[in-house]
Amino acid sequence: MEELYQIRQKNLETIFHPKSIAIVGTNKVKGTVPHDILDSILKADFNGIVFPVSPRENSIKGIKAYKYVVDIPDEVDLAILVFPSSVNHMALEQCGQKGIKSVIIISAGYKEVGEAGLQKEKQLIEIARKYDMSFIGPNCLGVINTAPGTNLNASFAREMPEKGNIGFLSQSGALCTAVLDYARAKHIGFSKFISFGNKADISEIDLLYYLMNDEETKVILMYLEEVSDGKGLMKAARDVIEQSGKPILIIKSGRTDEGASAAASHTGSLTGKDEICDAAFEQAGIIRCDHLEEMFNKAIAFAYQPAPASEKVAIITNAGGPGVLTTDAAISRGLKLAKFSEETTQILKKALPATANINNPVDVIGDARSDRYMTAIQAAFNDPDVAGVFVILTPQSMTDIETIARDITEIAEGQTKPIYASFMGEKDVAIGIDLLQQHKIPHYILPESMCSAYQAVYHFNKTLKPKVHRLPEIDGIEGEKARKLMDEALSNGRSYIPEVETIEILQTYGLPVPRGKLATTPEEAVTVAEEIGYPVVLKVVSDDIIHKSEVKGVELNLGSADEVKEGWERIRKNVKSAMPEASITGLYVIRMIKGSEEIILGIKRDPSFGPVLLFGLGGIFVEVFRDVSFGVAPLSREEAIRMIEQTRAWEILKGLRGRTPRDKDSIVDALLRLSRLAEDFPEIEELDINPLFVLDQGNGSVIGDARMIVNTNK
Amino acid sequence: MEELYQIRQKNLETIFHPKSIAIVGTNKVKGTVPHDILDSILKADFNGIVFPVSPRENSIKGIKAYKYVVDIPDEVDLAILVFPSSVNHMALEQCGQKGIKSVIIISAGYKEVGEAGLQKEKQLIEIARKYDMSFIGPNCLGVINTAPGTNLNASFAREMPEKGNIGFLSQSGALCTAVLDYARAKHIGFSKFISFGNKADISEIDLLYYLMNDEETKVILMYLEEVSDGKGLMKAARDVIEQSGKPILIIKSGRTDEGASAAASHTGSLTGKDEICDAAFEQAGIIRCDHLEEMFNKAIAFAYQPAPASEKVAIITNAGGPGVLTTDAAISRGLKLAKFSEETTQILKKALPATANINNPVDVIGDARSDRYMTAIQAAFNDPDVAGVFVILTPQSMTDIETIARDITEIAEGQTKPIYASFMGEKDVAIGIDLLQQHKIPHYILPESMCSAYQAVYHFNKTLKPKVHRLPEIDGIEGEKARKLMDEALSNGRSYIPEVETIEILQTYGLPVPRGKLATTPEEAVTVAEEIGYPVVLKVVSDDIIHKSEVKGVELNLGSADEVKEGWERIRKNVKSAMPEASITGLYVIRMIKGSEEIILGIKRDPSFGPVLLFGLGGIFVEVFRDVSFGVAPLSREEAIRMIEQTRAWEILKGLRGRTPRDKDSIVDALLRLSRLAEDFPEIEELDINPLFVLDQGNGSVIGDARMIVNTNK
Repeated sequence: MEELYQIRQKNLETIFHPKSIAIVGTNKVKGTVPHDILDSILKADFNGIVFPVSPRENSIKGIKAYKYVVDIPDEVDLAILVFPSSVNHMALEQCGQKGIKSVIIISAGYKEVGEAGLQKEKQLIEIARKYDMSFIGPNCLGVINTAPGTNLNASFAREMPEKGNIGFLSQSGALCTAVLDYARAKHIGFSKFISFGNKADISEIDLLYYLMNDEETKVILMYLEEVSDGKGLMKAARDVIEQSGKPILIIKSGRTDEGASAAASHTGSLTGKDEICDAAFEQAGIIRCDHLEEMFNKAIAFAYQPAPASEKVAIITNAGGPGVLTTDAAISRGLKLAKFSEETTQILKKALPATANINNPVDVIGDARSDRYMTAIQAAFNDPDVAGVFVILTPQSMTDIETIARDITEIAEGQTKPIYASFMGEKDVAIGIDLLQQHKIPHYILPESMCSAYQAVYHFNKTLKPKVHRLPEIDGIEGEKARKLMDEALSNGRSYIPEVETIEILQTYGLPVPRGKLATTPEEAVTVAEEIGYPVVLKVVSDDIIHKSEVKGVELNLGSADEVKEGWERIRKNVKSAMPEASITGLYVIRMIKGSEEIILGIKRDPSFGPVLLFGLGGIFVEVFRDVSFGVAPLSREEAIRMIEQTRAWEILKGLRGRTPRDKDSIVDALLRLSRLAEDFPEIEELDINPLFVLDQGNGSVIGDARMIVNTNK
Repeated sequence: MEELYQIRQKNLETIFHPKSIAIVGTNKVKGTVPHDILDSILKADFNGIVFPVSPRENSIKGIKAYKYVVDIPDEVDLAILVFPSSVNHMALEQCGQKGIKSVIIISAGYKEVGEAGLQKEKQLIEIARKYDMSFIGPNCLGVINTAPGTNLNASFAREMPEKGNIGFLSQSGALCTAVLDYARAKHIGFSKFISFGNKADISEIDLLYYLMNDEETKVILMYLEEVSDGKGLMKAARDVIEQSGKPILIIKSGRTDEGASAAASHTGSLTGKDEICDAAFEQAGIIRCDHLEEMFNKAIAFAYQPAPASEKVAIITNAGGPGVLTTDAAISRGLKLAKFSEETTQILKKALPATANINNPVDVIGDARSDRYMTAIQAAFNDPDVAGVFVILTPQSMTDIETIARDITEIAEGQTKPIYASFMGEKDVAIGIDLLQQHKIPHYILPESMCSAYQAVYHFNKTLKPKVHRLPEIDGIEGEKARKLMDEALSNGRSYIPEVETIEILQTYGLPVPRGKLATTPEEAVTVAEEIGYPVVLKVVSDDIIHKSEVKGVELNLGSADEVKEGWERIRKNVKSAMPEASITGLYVIRMIKGSEEIILGIKRDPSFGPVLLFGLGGIFVEVFRDVSFGVAPLSREEAIRMIEQTRAWEILKGLRGRTPRDKDSIVDALLRLSRLAEDFPEIEELDINPLFVLDQGNGSVIGDARMIVNTNK
């Protein structure tokens, strides 16, 4: 795999910086992809040689064409395949023979059309492997590199985008055209623009690593429809952020599709895959966006302006109403209004009319011209409490929109604090907005988007970027014993492993199992009870019974030998009447826990991200309030803590209204041990600890009940 | 008040349809408000006579000017005052003398600048009353009426907006200029456009009623900074919706300001005023919006297209990715994807290429031209399961953007189902978007906004419009006894009324008080206990003790005479040691309730909306999950039910996983009685029932504890 990675990185270099390109399968029919892609390359003034390859034509657009790629006399760096999928594999074979290593396969008709296409796609991969070739696609729009030395538009996009420092990756080709159109209107520039289609060979992970090392790229954006290798994506994102500090913004579509197909079972419905994707992205430091507008609103803040040092902003407006709306938006996104120094206040008092509001949000009043705006902006920049400046403008009759926009671009130059603007309206303010966008001042139609963008940059730099994913050392794990117990549990082919056996396995991983033992007679139960101390709980143990409470197979709070015997008898009768056929192994006798908070912990297995941990408040509340959090294994200690602290349950655990806090450390420890167990035993499909009794700080936790579902095919 | 209302409605008629206007205080200085407003009126080709009034000029813009308004020889319908606030009152007095009834006061310098301004504003009101005049303003942008017979732009807005069926009201003048600019670019037309400023005389309530009867107006929008008369606003909104069926969309700013100034006390923090505003708007059928973009996105859906009959939509796209994103957006906003009939499927199968997706969302594929789109749209319109059509377009190289837009406007004509569009991108698609907007096809940049707009129209027509606010009849209220008890409770000047007295008052209003009595000796307590039945609860009663639990003044679950006596002794000792000075009235003996769900009910008083009811889950959960709902009194039965059903608590109360449902009717009944109590007794500042024990269905509820804070100045 490491080798393949190296090959791909090398071949990607040639995809983006080829000296010569063969367009394999091009033709003379305008408005078709095979023709338009040649046209795009020529129109973008590509800084190299283009060889059209066409079985039918001698020349296209005045350039000599070759019948086969092997006929080209010169060396070829990059081949772009635009033949129908029925013949592409032959062309690819020839590319291999010609010694071409880098390929873009534009043509559709592969995996996306079903089984026949999938077979053709596999054929492409085989050929690529044979010749150490790498390819982007198939079923994509192509690739753009705006670097001046290259000028490569190897795509069928209508126009080349502006040069900039944003790298954009998309699984959907069609979306790319909308993005390019949107970006062009807003002067948003790209370093690389890559449609990766079916990602049969080169994937988004390879591309992330490539952009990590790409000096032209400062911000990475991605539209993704399918996470095929969740762990790989998380690792790549962590590497990119840690090694290059570049933010990664991803739209992952299909939020609700997954929700709809959620498993019917109770716990299944809590682990909607999309929530896991959310958790995984957060763990990896990826900023997940819901739509293109949100992604670009955040991207321009990252790409154009310095990062803010704090969450304190100054708002400068020429209208009270929008000032209030912006304040609302800021506060509700966790930003704060900076408190001006005496000096700032004096400057504003002197420069602004008496009716102006010199406190933050500053209202320079409807008849303000640029001078008032600039005085206020400069004062805000100079104020030590201000970390960023928001400029709001409404088009009043006196407002010199163009001058104000131009002056903002000038005053922003060389500042170490970010400045964002919102010119409200549309037609009259258009000239000002265009000026701002040309000069890389982030502009937002809505104050909400402005505040969200600021918050995203601040959060990334303060929290996501510095994060390191360090796995904790865990002691007291008896791996061999666990393996042996698991093998025994699996030996009879069950997929459901009941309480007693699950708890034995949990014990080998150092989880806080209850004091207790299996008893086969009432007398033995009493002996166990006296050993572990009263009061005790009795629970029926039977391979035939999954829901013990439903057959009334549980007796709580038994305080003496007599009570234990009576409890035994009640359970025997209850089970006999509810499930006469059930074979009873015995009763499980454990110490009763009082004065604790009940939570649930669990392991699930996600098809993209592998083992996932679950934490939530116990009882009916997990169901009613959906107050659960997820974490992809292996967890770092920080991630385990975050899983707890991001729930409302944490407010209860940490000690509401003067109550003693519960033992959080013991939950963290349990999560880390479960994470390790999940990694070590791929056969665990699902594991529930429900409840875990969490005692007061320093007193640990105790497992109340546990069960496990295993996949015997692993 | 009724008379004043009639006068205002009559005078508003002349404000919007004057035959002659005096501009009082105008001048020749371009770029100033007094000049520009005259200019606006003339430029808009006003269909009547304009009289400039200026102390200094003989003529302005070639029109004869008068020194004073009383000098005008003809009758004057409307005066627009643009003098400085220092002289406006004299001008208004002259307007009165001249017999002018309708006035717009543009000038600023009133309430918004503080106490001196407020006095000047009061002076204006006095003069207006004297002459039966009504005025809009002061401190506003003015008024626009696009009706062709009138053509009135009595504002200093740069340009007249297009004619349309949206009525827009704004408390902020500055925002108006941004709105007009935004609307012009999007071809959004207005019937009336009104900046009402300080609303010293004519308020948003008068204007709502005016627009209710205005035939040109179909949708009403408002930007509001301050709700001065919450009850009046609710009544007006209900009347408008009930009598005219027109939707009302309001932005109410200051969401977080209120949150920040929330009372420090625990219950105070739950009743952030903004949540009450949310509840009040919902009760009155008002659609609350967060920002202008959202408001106009919804407004055009109401204004341009028929209302959908169901939540089932068809999505038609030329790109898979955006189709998925739109599906996500639709589902997460409660919409559904329509299931096509066999006929529709056959039509699509025949007309679309094999690679197209003929299921909903329909993908007509990237190379689709208008014919494919139209076939799919027509098929969707004809399908009985489809209630609305969403058209998504990305600009591919083959896409004939302009033709598709034009064809959509044609195919939409005469349809009874709505059609919305989203042309993704910006520059290339601009020509298509403009065509759609000109022809009143709602266009959205984001699928999210499209789906929210559809949902808003559907919800309004299905739920908000048919709602009637009918007050329930409540029996068993002993009003006189309640008054007497309240007077007694108030007699010693306390603001805190403790449990026993509060419960006596609640009993007179038929609330489910516990079986119990005050006892002054242990023996008396035993007598009470035997009367009401064991087990019982003892609670200390003392004017000095507010938090009974904190002094350990409560004993639960006492099952016999001995236990009652022992409990009595423990409380005596506990209180003595915790609060030796406290004077103890006795102990309250009540029947212990088991097997119930604990909820809280309360009354708060809101400065804008008056008495407000609160419902929430009891215990620590109200604090941790903020799972509470509010309702403005007087409540209808439906509103009381909605208060319960909109909380998560309802999921618990209605019987989770096969448990017996709790007695919801008894909670509804309690809420309605509390609502009545709150209306009847303005001195109740705050009342908490915490907990209310809710028993199983049919068994009612019982109050567990109650307390009241009264305002002795009422």
